[in-house]
Amino acid sequence: MDNKHEILQLLRQVADGNTTPEQALTALKRQPFEDLGYAKVDFHRSVRQGAAEVIYGAGKTAEQIIGIARTMGERGCRNILITRLDAQPAETVAQVIPVDYHPIPRLAIAYPDAHASRGKIVVATGGTSDMAVAEEAALTAEVLGNHVVRLYDVGVAGLHRLLSRLDELMDARCVVAVAGMEGALASVIGGLVDCPVIAVPTSVGYGASFGGLSALLSMLNSCASGCSVVNIDNGFGAGYLASRINQMEGLED
Amino acid sequence: MDNKHEILQLLRQVADGNTTPEQALTALKRQPFEDLGYAKVDFHRSVRQGAAEVIYGAGKTAEQIIGIARTMGERGCRNILITRLDAQPAETVAQVIPVDYHPIPRLAIAYPDAHASRGKIVVATGGTSDMAVAEEAALTAEVLGNHVVRLYDVGVAGLHRLLSRLDELMDARCVVAVAGMEGALASVIGGLVDCPVIAVPTSVGYGASFGGLSALLSMLNSCASGCSVVNIDNGFGAGYLASRINQMEGLED
Amino acid sequence: MDNKHEILQLLRQVADGNTTPEQALTALKRQPFEDLGYAKVDFHRSVRQGAAEVIYGAGKTAEQIIGIARTMGERGCRNILITRLDAQPAETVAQVIPVDYHPIPRLAIAYPDAHASRGKIVVATGGTSDMAVAEEAALTAEVLGNHVVRLYDVGVAGLHRLLSRLDELMDARCVVAVAGMEGALASVIGGLVDCPVIAVPTSVGYGASFGGLSALLSMLNSCASGCSVVNIDNGFGAGYLASRINQMEGLED
Amino acid sequence: MDNKHEILQLLRQVADGNTTPEQALTALKRQPFEDLGYAKVDFHRSVRQGAAEVIYGAGKTAEQIIGIARTMGERGCRNILITRLDAQPAETVAQVIPVDYHPIPRLAIAYPDAHASRGKIVVATGGTSDMAVAEEAALTAEVLGNHVVRLYDVGVAGLHRLLSRLDELMDARCVVAVAGMEGALASVIGGLVDCPVIAVPTSVGYGASFGGLSALLSMLNSCASGCSVVNIDNGFGAGYLASRINQMEGLED
Amino acid sequence: MDNKHEILQLLRQVADGNTTPEQALTALKRQPFEDLGYAKVDFHRSVRQGAAEVIYGAGKTAEQIIGIARTMGERGCRNILITRLDAQPAETVAQVIPVDYHPIPRLAIAYPDAHASRGKIVVATGGTSDMAVAEEAALTAEVLGNHVVRLYDVGVAGLHRLLSRLDELMDARCVVAVAGMEGALASVIGGLVDCPVIAVPTSVGYGASFGGLSALLSMLNSCASGCSVVNIDNGFGAGYLASRINQMEGLED
Amino acid sequence: MDNKHEILQLLRQVADGNTTPEQALTALKRQPFEDLGYAKVDFHRSVRQGAAEVIYGAGKTAEQIIGIARTMGERGCRNILITRLDAQPAETVAQVIPVDYHPIPRLAIAYPDAHASRGKIVVATGGTSDMAVAEEAALTAEVLGNHVVRLYDVGVAGLHRLLSRLDELMDARCVVAVAGMEGALASVIGGLVDCPVIAVPTSVGYGASFGGLSALLSMLNSCASGCSVVNIDNGFGAGYLASRINQMEGLED
Amino acid sequence: MDNKHEILQLLRQVADGNTTPEQALTALKRQPFEDLGYAKVDFHRSVRQGAAEVIYGAGKTAEQIIGIARTMGERGCRNILITRLDAQPAETVAQVIPVDYHPIPRLAIAYPDAHASRGKIVVATGGTSDMAVAEEAALTAEVLGNHVVRLYDVGVAGLHRLLSRLDELMDARCVVAVAGMEGALASVIGGLVDCPVIAVPTSVGYGASFGGLSALLSMLNSCASGCSVVNIDNGFGAGYLASRINQMEGLED
Amino acid sequence: MDNKHEILQLLRQVADGNTTPEQALTALKRQPFEDLGYAKVDFHRSVRQGAAEVIYGAGKTAEQIIGIARTMGERGCRNILITRLDAQPAETVAQVIPVDYHPIPRLAIAYPDAHASRGKIVVATGGTSDMAVAEEAALTAEVLGNHVVRLYDVGVAGLHRLLSRLDELMDARCVVAVAGMEGALASVIGGLVDCPVIAVPTSVGYGASFGGLSALLSMLNSCASGCSVVNIDNGFGAGYLASRINQMEGLED
Repeated sequence: MDNKHEILQLLRQVADGNTTPEQALTALKRQPFEDLGYAKVDFHRSVRQGAAEVIYGAGKTAEQIIGIARTMGERGCRNILITRLDAQPAETVAQVIPVDYHPIPRLAIAYPDAHASRGKIVVATGGTSDMAVAEEAALTAEVLGNHVVRLYDVGVAGLHRLLSRLDELMDARCVVAVAGMEGALASVIGGLVDCPVIAVPTSVGYGASFGGLSALLSMLNSCASGCSVVNIDNGFGAGYLASRINQMEGLED
Repeated sequence: MDNKHEILQLLRQVADGNTTPEQALTALKRQPFEDLGYAKVDFHRSVRQGAAEVIYGAGKTAEQIIGIARTMGERGCRNILITRLDAQPAETVAQVIPVDYHPIPRLAIAYPDAHASRGKIVVATGGTSDMAVAEEAALTAEVLGNHVVRLYDVGVAGLHRLLSRLDELMDARCVVAVAGMEGALASVIGGLVDCPVIAVPTSVGYGASFGGLSALLSMLNSCASGCSVVNIDNGFGAGYLASRINQMEGLED
Repeated sequence: MDNKHEILQLLRQVADGNTTPEQALTALKRQPFEDLGYAKVDFHRSVRQGAAEVIYGAGKTAEQIIGIARTMGERGCRNILITRLDAQPAETVAQVIPVDYHPIPRLAIAYPDAHASRGKIVVATGGTSDMAVAEEAALTAEVLGNHVVRLYDVGVAGLHRLLSRLDELMDARCVVAVAGMEGALASVIGGLVDCPVIAVPTSVGYGASFGGLSALLSMLNSCASGCSVVNIDNGFGAGYLASRINQMEGLED
Repeated sequence: MDNKHEILQLLRQVADGNTTPEQALTALKRQPFEDLGYAKVDFHRSVRQGAAEVIYGAGKTAEQIIGIARTMGERGCRNILITRLDAQPAETVAQVIPVDYHPIPRLAIAYPDAHASRGKIVVATGGTSDMAVAEEAALTAEVLGNHVVRLYDVGVAGLHRLLSRLDELMDARCVVAVAGMEGALASVIGGLVDCPVIAVPTSVGYGASFGGLSALLSMLNSCASGCSVVNIDNGFGAGYLASRINQMEGLED
Repeated sequence: MDNKHEILQLLRQVADGNTTPEQALTALKRQPFEDLGYAKVDFHRSVRQGAAEVIYGAGKTAEQIIGIARTMGERGCRNILITRLDAQPAETVAQVIPVDYHPIPRLAIAYPDAHASRGKIVVATGGTSDMAVAEEAALTAEVLGNHVVRLYDVGVAGLHRLLSRLDELMDARCVVAVAGMEGALASVIGGLVDCPVIAVPTSVGYGASFGGLSALLSMLNSCASGCSVVNIDNGFGAGYLASRINQMEGLED
Repeated sequence: MDNKHEILQLLRQVADGNTTPEQALTALKRQPFEDLGYAKVDFHRSVRQGAAEVIYGAGKTAEQIIGIARTMGERGCRNILITRLDAQPAETVAQVIPVDYHPIPRLAIAYPDAHASRGKIVVATGGTSDMAVAEEAALTAEVLGNHVVRLYDVGVAGLHRLLSRLDELMDARCVVAVAGMEGALASVIGGLVDCPVIAVPTSVGYGASFGGLSALLSMLNSCASGCSVVNIDNGFGAGYLASRINQMEGLED
Repeated sequence: MDNKHEILQLLRQVADGNTTPEQALTALKRQPFEDLGYAKVDFHRSVRQGAAEVIYGAGKTAEQIIGIARTMGERGCRNILITRLDAQPAETVAQVIPVDYHPIPRLAIAYPDAHASRGKIVVATGGTSDMAVAEEAALTAEVLGNHVVRLYDVGVAGLHRLLSRLDELMDARCVVAVAGMEGALASVIGGLVDCPVIAVPTSVGYGASFGGLSALLSMLNSCASGCSVVNIDNGFGAGYLASRINQMEGLED
Repeated sequence: MDNKHEILQLLRQVADGNTTPEQALTALKRQPFEDLGYAKVDFHRSVRQGAAEVIYGAGKTAEQIIGIARTMGERGCRNILITRLDAQPAETVAQVIPVDYHPIPRLAIAYPDAHASRGKIVVATGGTSDMAVAEEAALTAEVLGNHVVRLYDVGVAGLHRLLSRLDELMDARCVVAVAGMEGALASVIGGLVDCPVIAVPTSVGYGASFGGLSALLSMLNSCASGCSVVNIDNGFGAGYLASRINQMEGLED
């Protein structure tokens, strides 16, 4: 049972008469986050689920990151994702807490631990230069316990490269399509598969790509049904959502 | 087995040696769509699955719509969605083929038929005026066989209205959050639930809402994980994707 | 020899000593256009070449259009294109001068006449609703003496429909790719063919298509080489340029 | 009586007959600012009121800042705010005049002095990274004599963190809501409190946050009444306006 | 005690021990809004305070508006504002419930009643054509019990017209500055007065005013301290906020 | 001496000791405008100078326009420009006061009177459809006493049409260049003449002309020195400024 | 007689019969520019007039600048403006050719020489930080032989600073109004003076100033007649145009 | 036979009965690209045709570029273009494989070899600073076997420089018009020549050029027929397309 559920289940139990209001209030007072001054750290979920937590690294000092991660680690969190962490502060962090660092997506995994590898998520990119965002998505999904297949450099200008990997695409429970420039990859994949497709526009490109705007608009206007879009360069968000979808329980009959 | 799968499975069977290339080529020649001149109509899927097909009504004459729908209907399609259909042409269509017309979302269901009502999708709106888009999403999802719960007028400026319906939200397998103006509804719901959230910005608003741009950007920048966004006013796309997610099979262990 | 060439050849002849300056000045005084007050009509080219002239119909009264077209017709112009002409003024025009009117692209051909049908230009559209712009391109190219093949409703969300027409695409000397929404059609075709591809974004769509901006940016950012773009909805410009390319003479060895 | 009042009261006194025009003109000639060449320094207000003056530090050299601040200090100004001052020039300034420097908001207070701490302004942020702007607002308000309560990292994606501090919010006479990304914080707070809410969009974020544009539009479109917005990252402006509101005198009955 | 306060005070009383949790829960069950299906109507506040409620009229049928207003009126609400209501539906509404209709700002006051006229709010406009928005602000403020002074057509291109009314401006407790085109009015007034200034950009203008964008940006960038901005054409929001500020109680010493 | 001068000269005379403050104050009290409630009418200038006054017609009722114009006319104003006045209200106005109405630029001249025709202003357009804006500029300049030469339909795509009128351009004291679409006319003329060039972008065009934005940006970026730009479609502003420049007095030696 | 005039006068003389075509052609062959490979240098004008030429320094190497300037200098050009030249390359240039360098506007004057100081141009700025652009305008105008008065830091938020300098403004033959942020300075000055006003938006500011866009739009929408706008930060263009206007000859009677 | 043709011809041969499906499948298995992990390298075309291949250098390490280029070179590719390659990595590359490096367009040609120089392409620029983009286009076209003529610094503000080179323009089979700022060059050239014109907007400029947006829009809106546009700064794309057009075979009669 995670933190949000904890609170709300509590309220429902009160409503159902299964918990007295007094008990509920006492429970609510056990503050579900620790206040470090510069941040309020949630830590319940990971302990219970082995699921990863995330620290958005941009704009935080190495010291703040260490503070937050250590607080989590000491509570038992494992596989804590630290996104947008440059190599320099990553080294500082690694001297204090155990960290696996991936330089291309600038992603660190603190207190790394074994995790499951279930279902199947395909992460595809239009070009080589979309790889940083794609790896953020792929590593996020892996750390959250999903099996990930990478299909990189399969952009629509060379359709044969994409079509030669159709088998991989058809088996996926969820596809993350990462592309800059014209962003057509999401449309084409959306027309080929039947599972949900999460499109990630990247800021890769020049001229009228306007920092990812072109790919973003293209993906929003995709004529293929079953697609949705996350923010430009938001590999973490795509990987996280793909994990939620991949790990859906089946409908009871 | 639907059309896209049909083709690709075929190719895989050839690759696996289960089908000879000659058989594959013969199969491929059975053209999977009918060419009406002004449109190429796919019709395989619905026959097999009872799933709905969609006709984008905007910019088509009543005659073209009748032509496409009747072609489908005669092949056995049921519950064919016709989106963005004004009342005037809807009447013309209804004189020729059986149609359920919903004036608020300007949505028609041709050859209406019984359908399942499985799982649970919540469709929530920020205000009363987002209802047209929300109904497009809700009806789409219902016609595709999903159970839909509507939570309308629960915008974040009156947080107590949203919180009073937390039970409904917590049970959903997928939430569609429909909002114009500031679009904050998606962020707040995204922080409250654990299932995938599909955000639909609407063009409702005035001034600096810029035809839905404000809500779109707000939703893309949502700090809550697990959210993704479809195009402005794209109720159909949200309902279709929500259906895909709601009807996910569980992971095999 | 057309009007522009006329002037400039003249200057070159002077430079080469083949014409005296006095002769050149006399020639320059024969004004190459007629001034109707509200417009300055060029008419030389068509007389010599049988090539079409174009009148941009938007914002002109039926009377002005008749005035310009008749001036041209009386000088011997044939197959004069009148673009963006609504049905109402088209009828008025047709009562005075011979006109073939095409209601979907709102295009009239005044003083229609036989014309050649050489080479091969493919005009492809993503959807049915891009047809108006595509027909403006196709009719323009035909009137200019080119053979045109139409491939409509072959958008990338149903890739099998495009791939089933690969033969037609591979034979073209020039392809005009017309698409709204995400505009991916140009990228995909650009990756499939070796001839020049002219992309025409259309204003078809809703929400974040922003009146064709999304398709425009997508096409500009196309990763496929050999593509270029004309203005949103500019079917005439695409058809005109496609004609120039299709009718290129071969290189002398 | 401050500078602007001084001039205008003067004019009203003339209009009322309480001052002769000659006296008014003489008064007007006492130039209310000192011209340093590169700047015209107002200094009247602070002397009288103990209120802070502000120097916009960006694009000024340390020497210019020292020149302006010293001119004020010598006239008796205290608690002079210097905004957007980097650490490097701040050190140079500190060697010459007394300065309290705050590195996170890059804000210096020259000639620091005791000040009141009246009423109650709450400064809230969506995330840790909005802290720089929030501190500019908070310190500005404090220096102007207001009591400030900080509620940082209470973004709407974790609604429980905000709701756990409702007491603080309900007591405020004015709330400054600082948020980047989706900017929903202002809407939610605006729906919870009855006092004026000043929204400050920040340029924190990436991708489609477009340097604060997303938060700006979101806040302008806030459905909650009682909100208004200042420029992106304009912590000083928010703190200054909050002070004006917090220090309103009551209506006479 | 209004609705929001009601709930939150309740929670605080529980926290303080002044209310038992059981009592709190019972209170919470008395739903503070009535659900009409198409809308959820809040009605507590006005009954107690005589303060106005607002119905956003755009996109609602006359029947829906009547339904919402009558529900409020029957609970004792008076001076209910209905904004953006065209003359046609206004007539329909007026046949059923008592209404004062103002055609220029397209604003109706349902169940009109006597109200106070306290303090002083100045509403100023740059030109005659900003009057509709200004009247929405002025009438809103008046209905909420404030004394309003109108200064119309005092744009900065004719500075003498503004300066001739300095007396009025200097006395205000709050100024609402309404302007389209270049929006400079807010900056100039902001530099002349010491009270809070609420800037309202209007969509009045043409060309590069881009529907109010120019005025909006201009006002956000105002160099004068003490200004904040509401959405384009949002007269209601400005009037409402001005009322909050005008009616501030004084600080206790 | 016009109104603005009147006031400011007065202040200077006081400063110079040529006027006593009492006299100045008395003069200032003679309000230089008449307040009609919905507008404040300036009328001094025209009486003295025979110069035109302007009423911006858009968004005013025929009655308001009559009110303003008659107030001016009765004070002796002549040649009062009423811009953006549709044919319908123009007829109503013409029944009450003497008016010359020009339907293409939708411009009326009330109380028309003889005027001078001095110097030389060239008004040039890129195409026929820019004529409405060009006529607003030309008529404005003529009514203000300038000699105007019209060069219409001389866009840069047919350079010979422009070059054939070089004589006219070279003689001008000021050129107004009116163009939509790509706006190149201003650059080319700016490179050909030595007098000031006022560029007027028009909203004529389609697709990526974005309501005149393309022409506006093009003109702002003109590489030719001596050009400046007014708002999109602002023919009046261009004509007014051209008049100021054309009527400059020479420098004294 | 300058270069452009030279060519065109020639053509007119031919048209008038005052020059034979042969003479004209010979004259035309004397190429009016020297081709350095990387640039084509015009040099006629300055020799005759003592007027300044301009070299746009951005994106050119010191060597290229020296090459262009020396070619001009050797032909007798004096007071050659080199804009956007950083201090580093300026030093390199100064070692080879005589140069006066102004670091704030990053402007060099090569082959400096005495020049006239006629008429009166006022250059005004909103703030201290607009000084770089203002100095580019002022120095350009001075070098072109105009008398320039600087009014810096007279922004509209402190109206008394502007009003205290009204004398200077009223005497100008042309005003250059330089302002970033809200750009209101141009509107206010435009309402105070009767001479042409050239508005220069600057990229100074932050947040929603969007690199000068806010000031640009504000200035384009100025309600004051007689204003026109040049590109963002284009001090040179403003100074050049101001010079043209200031040096207008008077109308002959 | 190149790679794309290889695949598709194969499919057509199967359709025509000239190849058995088994043969086709075997052929398809010979993967037409080599997978280096970080890239999938196509190499067929160049071997056959001596045509250049292109590597987009931006965002790739020197090692990756060497890997890709060497793979191609070892297969026999010659004249491999490496675009957007800075001088630093270019040196590293040059130590390992034979490379001609052009610093201005930051373009390398790996495994340089003799090539043809057929037909005639003109590359024209508006200014000196557009030279980097123009050289990318020119070198690309040359390496692909075309004869290229450069006309640099012929912008429309000095029309005589362009007109003096009319001979060169009139002879071209294709013109590439490269311009930043206002982009008028494409319109003017488009009106002067009869061959296809490819417009390349550049990001050169400042202020309202908005990184090439102004030139892009201007070029899209060109009133001259026969123009099309590629992405901002996309010299390679323009050169590649110009080559396709220049090398068109003539129509068979």
